[in-house]
Amino acid sequence: MNQEPSQQLGEIIEQFIHSFIAENNNIRSRKVINTADGDTIAHLRGIGFPKKGRPIQEVVDEMRKNVYPHQTFMQHPRFFALVPGPMSLYSWLGDIMTSAYNTHAGSWMLSSSASLLEGEVIRWMCDQAGYPNTAGGLFLSGGSLSNLTALAAARNARLSEQEYAIGTAYVSDQTHSSVAKGLRILGFRGDQIRKIPSDKNFRMDVSALEKKVMDDQAAGMKPFAIIATAGTTNTGSIDPLNEIADLCEKHNIWLHVDGAYGASILASSKYKPLLSGISRSDSITWDAHKWLMQTYSCSVVLAKENQQLRNCFSTHPEYLKDAETNEEYINYWDLGPELTRPARSLKLWVTLQALGTNAVGEAIEHGVQLAEWAEDEIKKHNHWEIVSPAQLAIVNFRYAPTGLSEQELDSLNKRISQEMMTNGYASVLTTQLNGKTVLRICAIHPDTTEHEIRNTIQLLSNIARSLNETKAFL
Amino acid sequence: MNQEPSQQLGEIIEQFIHSFIAENNNIRSRKVINTADGDTIAHLRGIGFPKKGRPIQEVVDEMRKNVYPHQTFMQHPRFFALVPGPMSLYSWLGDIMTSAYNTHAGSWMLSSSASLLEGEVIRWMCDQAGYPNTAGGLFLSGGSLSNLTALAAARNARLSEQEYAIGTAYVSDQTHSSVAKGLRILGFRGDQIRKIPSDKNFRMDVSALEKKVMDDQAAGMKPFAIIATAGTTNTGSIDPLNEIADLCEKHNIWLHVDGAYGASILASSKYKPLLSGISRSDSITWDAHKWLMQTYSCSVVLAKENQQLRNCFSTHPEYLKDAETNEEYINYWDLGPELTRPARSLKLWVTLQALGTNAVGEAIEHGVQLAEWAEDEIKKHNHWEIVSPAQLAIVNFRYAPTGLSEQELDSLNKRISQEMMTNGYASVLTTQLNGKTVLRICAIHPDTTEHEIRNTIQLLSNIARSLNETKAFL
Ligand SMILES: Cc1ncc(COP(=O)(O)O)c(C=O)c1O
Ligand SMILES: Cc1ncc(COP(=O)(O)O)c(C=O)c1O
Repeated sequence: MNQEPSQQLGEIIEQFIHSFIAENNNIRSRKVINTADGDTIAHLRGIGFPKKGRPIQEVVDEMRKNVYPHQTFMQHPRFFALVPGPMSLYSWLGDIMTSAYNTHAGSWMLSSSASLLEGEVIRWMCDQAGYPNTAGGLFLSGGSLSNLTALAAARNARLSEQEYAIGTAYVSDQTHSSVAKGLRILGFRGDQIRKIPSDKNFRMDVSALEKKVMDDQAAGMKPFAIIATAGTTNTGSIDPLNEIADLCEKHNIWLHVDGAYGASILASSKYKPLLSGISRSDSITWDAHKWLMQTYSCSVVLAKENQQLRNCFSTHPEYLKDAETNEEYINYWDLGPELTRPARSLKLWVTLQALGTNAVGEAIEHGVQLAEWAEDEIKKHNHWEIVSPAQLAIVNFRYAPTGLSEQELDSLNKRISQEMMTNGYASVLTTQLNGKTVLRICAIHPDTTEHEIRNTIQLLSNIARSLNETKAFL
Repeated sequence: MNQEPSQQLGEIIEQFIHSFIAENNNIRSRKVINTADGDTIAHLRGIGFPKKGRPIQEVVDEMRKNVYPHQTFMQHPRFFALVPGPMSLYSWLGDIMTSAYNTHAGSWMLSSSASLLEGEVIRWMCDQAGYPNTAGGLFLSGGSLSNLTALAAARNARLSEQEYAIGTAYVSDQTHSSVAKGLRILGFRGDQIRKIPSDKNFRMDVSALEKKVMDDQAAGMKPFAIIATAGTTNTGSIDPLNEIADLCEKHNIWLHVDGAYGASILASSKYKPLLSGISRSDSITWDAHKWLMQTYSCSVVLAKENQQLRNCFSTHPEYLKDAETNEEYINYWDLGPELTRPARSLKLWVTLQALGTNAVGEAIEHGVQLAEWAEDEIKKHNHWEIVSPAQLAIVNFRYAPTGLSEQELDSLNKRISQEMMTNGYASVLTTQLNGKTVLRICAIHPDTTEHEIRNTIQLLSNIARSLNETKAFL
């Protein structure tokens, strides 16, 4: 079914590997954000779909020339926007092997060894979180679906079907948008989602939370889930997990911790205590494609009682019956929304084996350090304000020379980010904090150097000064 | 951050490519279903997670010896169970490249060219389905999530939040379990899902459907979605799409077509007319990791009005604002449940370019032919019954010698499947049809030969005869 003899295809792939690696060693010489120009767009649109196949070498060349270069390199050591994706080449190797064998990690019969290793990785993660032996979980494509999966299990555990319409869930104004989005997909109305204000450190305000829970109960609603964040996307803040756990225990509410970004800190023995209390949660989202150096897509949802996932997601259609096995051998399709599942855990297993857990911890600690260097550097320059200090590798700041209105400061900082993007050396976007437009750096690449991070701040400072002098942002 | 110099890692990868390809050329010499033995399980469990990394070559050897061989080869030319995954090596190549660049297909800013090609592939699929220019869609990880995504859009389009609790959805007794599972995840109670009986050809009974819809309306419920299947998993049956579309139009009900398995037949000009009426649907699920030769995970949901997906799934959190662009350039994270998205469309684009659409159509037609050969061969042997004739590459049959009770026939056919599994030549599992246990062949591998399919039937027949003689199944 392949036009070329497979040996020839093998050579084309080997050639790709070879030249990709050389290219990747040079990634620092490339711009971080690259979007296709009009000509490329027109060219790609013009290709269409041929009736007769094209030589595969030609297709590979097309991809390498017109597709892959025109993207944001999330794995660039100077991509500091959104959440970077500093992938290890070991993860890539895992993808190459797993895709070659097209492993279907849905059930024990389809992939016994892969299912077993998924269990091993899940167990390792549960251990980091301090979860008991009854815990479990599974791999999904991203934090959005992990949050959705955990919240479906929460609903199933805490509400009867008749109570679906009166259940209420609690997020903070800093909770990632995927949580509310997931709740909406699960069928909750907008008015069943409570947004609790955060304190000056961008952590959920627990007394406001408790008041809201009690008001809701008094009004006949049924609070069923509180979503605490361990590492908010904006500022890296960690909600007060122990206080929220106390509240959950008192009111029999499911505690979900969104650690999509921040849970990886559990792999650092130095910083693990920051997440004290996480073991008291009922479920955790933890993305390996964020701070555990995995390629997309690689996210994990953990549940303190694995049985809660099975209760929510297991079905038994006829044609799958022969593929059922006994309890000891997990069928992962019973634990989540997917039936067909790529074996996403294997690349993480490969990475953890090859790097060792110590090196993984150190890589994560390096990120924390990078943001601290950034903060240190920002403080050395005039007119800069730290809006949220370095925390879990994230720092927020703005250029705020005197004599400008808040609105002008917003435009100025927005323009600083845009000029930096045009410059191409690093990518630093803005976010909104307390109604202000601020610059945000998220620095989790293990290879980013102190020089690079300080240089980025210096460049921002130069851009800021010259924009302010010429008033080019007005 | 990688322990080995990347050049050395490159060599290890190239070596893997080389020996995998040789191995893959020999796939026919391997058993189809392989599960890890006790020793392997104990060995893998014993490894744990080292503090200091292990040499990557050792880890690769571990994977190749103890992980990948112990799986079901869904891509084996004689895997006839469940839905096979006959992947093209071009799809693998697409995975290798896309994973290398870790492309994030969430938004135009992050991956302009990849987003554009996703649009191109979606457009090609919409064309096959006869959808208008306003149509769109996106790639997801599997048919289960595509169905869920379409049904979330259906709910959003047809029900107000206040009506969520009275909406009703309609499936048949042959609809894939992922549909009801998706509806449950979306928050519908079990009693909001109506299971309509199927006729003797395992197609949804439209008069029973219409009666149920009208009864529900009369009872104050609000029918909002009918799920028709184009290619049921059990028998390859195609629900009467035009009649169901008439009903949907009359009652303003969203028509979703689950073509996860069968929609690929649209790529064959010869058989495309079988799905006549599909263009009248509101959404379609179409899995490329089933019959379009893609590796896991690669599924598509199409919507006749792309805007319906955006209405349902778009959110605009602060820190994503800088990544927003204008309407012309789609941000795929606005169209579905995922934020971070691997670029799943690129491997399909590569495959379609390299094979050409004609060859893809022929590959699919070959599957239809294989099942017809199987049926032909079954008819040549004594005591076999065709329970559902060859249809979209699926055929159901059973061994039914006289003098046995229905229960004994069930055990006998179950044992035939098990013996075949032990034999290892091919894999044929059972399913339930009309309360009977029957054997099922799903034959969509483009490289399976007439000899192999006839030989499989002959082997089944030998096994059946000898089991029946020795009465070993009782
Ligand atoms: C805290 C948090 N939760 C959830 C998500 C969503 O994860 P994903 O993009 O993998 O869907 C993100 C993404 O940045 C996040 O930062
Ligand atoms: C008709 C049909 N719909 C949906 C699905 C679910 O697809 P997936 O396994 O990719 O989630 C299947 C799987 O076999 C199927 O046959």
